[in-house]
Amino acid sequence: MVDPNKNISLYLQVKDILIKRIQEKVWAPNTLIPTEQELMDEFNVSRTTLRQAISILVQDGLLEKRQGKGTIVKSQQLTGNGRLKGFAEEVTEKGLTPKSKLLRAEFKHDLYHEKSMLNIPEDEEVLVIERIRFADQTPIAIERTCWPSHIGKLFINEDLDRAKFYEILESNDIILKRAKEKISAINATLFEADLLGIRGGEAMLETERLSFGLDDRPIEFSTIKFRSDKYHYNIELTR
Amino acid sequence: MVDPNKNISLYLQVKDILIKRIQEKVWAPNTLIPTEQELMDEFNVSRTTLRQAISILVQDGLLEKRQGKGTIVKSQQLTGNGRLKGFAEEVTEKGLTPKSKLLRAEFKHDLYHEKSMLNIPEDEEVLVIERIRFADQTPIAIERTCWPSHIGKLFINEDLDRAKFYEILESNDIILKRAKEKISAINATLFEADLLGIRGGEAMLETERLSFGLDDRPIEFSTIKFRSDKYHYNIELTR
Repeated sequence: MVDPNKNISLYLQVKDILIKRIQEKVWAPNTLIPTEQELMDEFNVSRTTLRQAISILVQDGLLEKRQGKGTIVKSQQLTGNGRLKGFAEEVTEKGLTPKSKLLRAEFKHDLYHEKSMLNIPEDEEVLVIERIRFADQTPIAIERTCWPSHIGKLFINEDLDRAKFYEILESNDIILKRAKEKISAINATLFEADLLGIRGGEAMLETERLSFGLDDRPIEFSTIKFRSDKYHYNIELTR
Repeated sequence: MVDPNKNISLYLQVKDILIKRIQEKVWAPNTLIPTEQELMDEFNVSRTTLRQAISILVQDGLLEKRQGKGTIVKSQQLTGNGRLKGFAEEVTEKGLTPKSKLLRAEFKHDLYHEKSMLNIPEDEEVLVIERIRFADQTPIAIERTCWPSHIGKLFINEDLDRAKFYEILESNDIILKRAKEKISAINATLFEADLLGIRGGEAMLETERLSFGLDDRPIEFSTIKFRSDKYHYNIELTR
C-alpha cells in the first residue's frame, strides 16, 4: 500500500491509510491503535516517517497520545454544515443517538426581543423551551427555542425529552424553507458549564437561528450553545 | 411616523425607526441618542413603549446603556457571511479602514500539518505569515496564513503591513475559486489576549480556511482568531 516510488511523500501515504482506517472504524473510537513497531513493520517505513504521519493526525484531532499508554482514536466532533437541520438529525447522521433533557417549557409574555424577531404582536405569547442536548450519553449543547403560540401549541403536549421539533412541524405540514444563522463565540457561565460538564469560562460556539416557512414568515427563533470540544461548524465559501 | 392605528405594536414601530437611524448613521456610533423625554415627545408614545423598543436594541447589541449618562450607539460588529473574501475586503465593505501589523514571515520546513493540507511535497517549504489585523485603530484578529513556496515568493517582497493577499494573487492571475472553512470557539491565551487588548481566556471565534484555485489545487491554508466582541459569522441555511 505504501509505495516508495510514488510521487507522494511516504508520510503522506501513511497518513492517508491511517485516516481511512479511522473513518471506516477499522480502528474504533476510544481504542488504542497498534504500536509504532507494529505499524513500522506493516508499512515498511522508518520511525520518523511514521511519527510525521501520526503527528498530523494528532494535530487534526483524529488521534491522541496518552502518556505511557499509546495512541488512541478520538471520538469525532459533531459539525454543522450550512443545511437547515435539527440537532437530532445531525446527531443521527453521525451514527450517534440523540437525547434531550427538558429544563423548562413555558408560554411567556415579556420576551420583547424574541417577539420582535418572530414578528409576534404585543398581546401574544411565545413558547420558550430549554433543553440539554446529548449525543449518546455526552451532553453537547444547551438549546433554547422560541415559537409563536400557534406553533407552540403543537409542541406543549409532546414528550419534550424526545420531541424532534422539525419532524413535528413537518408532520403538521409546516415546512421550513430557510434560516438565518449568526455564529459567535462566548464564555460558558458557571451555570452552563455545570449543565454540560465543562469548566466555567470555557469557550462555546453559539448559534442563533431565525427560521422561515414557505410563506417567508418566521417560525422559530433559537439559540444553541455548543461545547467547543464537541462541535464545530463547516462551511463552503465561493468567491 | 408612529401610527397607533397600524396593525403593528407601537414599540415595534418605534424599534424600526430607531434601527433605521442607527443604520443610516443619523445617530453616529459612540454618540448619545436623545433623552427618553425627547423621544417620547417626538414619537408621541409612553415611557413603557419607548423602553420596550430600546431594550430590544440593547439586547441586539445596537445600543448600550451607560450608567448616569444615557444610551449610546454601539459601533457595529464585523461579520463573515459565507463569501470567500479577505479580511481587508470585509473591513472596507463596512466603511472602516483595514490595517495590519506584521508579526513574522518566514519559509518553514517542518510544518507537517500545513504541508499536508496544502499538498506540498516533503522537500518543499511553506511561507508562514502572521499579522495582527485592525479595523480603523481597533485590533480585531490574529491571522496566520500559510502558502506554497511558488505563491510565497509573490508575497515575501511586498510590504506585509499593507499587503492584501487576494489582490496580489489576482493581479498575478491566480484566481481563488472556493474554500472550505471550519469555524470553532477557543479561549484566548495570555499571549493572544495581549496582542488584541482583551482578557486572557476570553472566547474567540476561530476560522480555519483552505482555499482552492480554479484547478482545484489548494492555494492557502490559514487560521484567523477573532475577538468575539468585534466579530461574528452570518450564514443562510436552506432546507
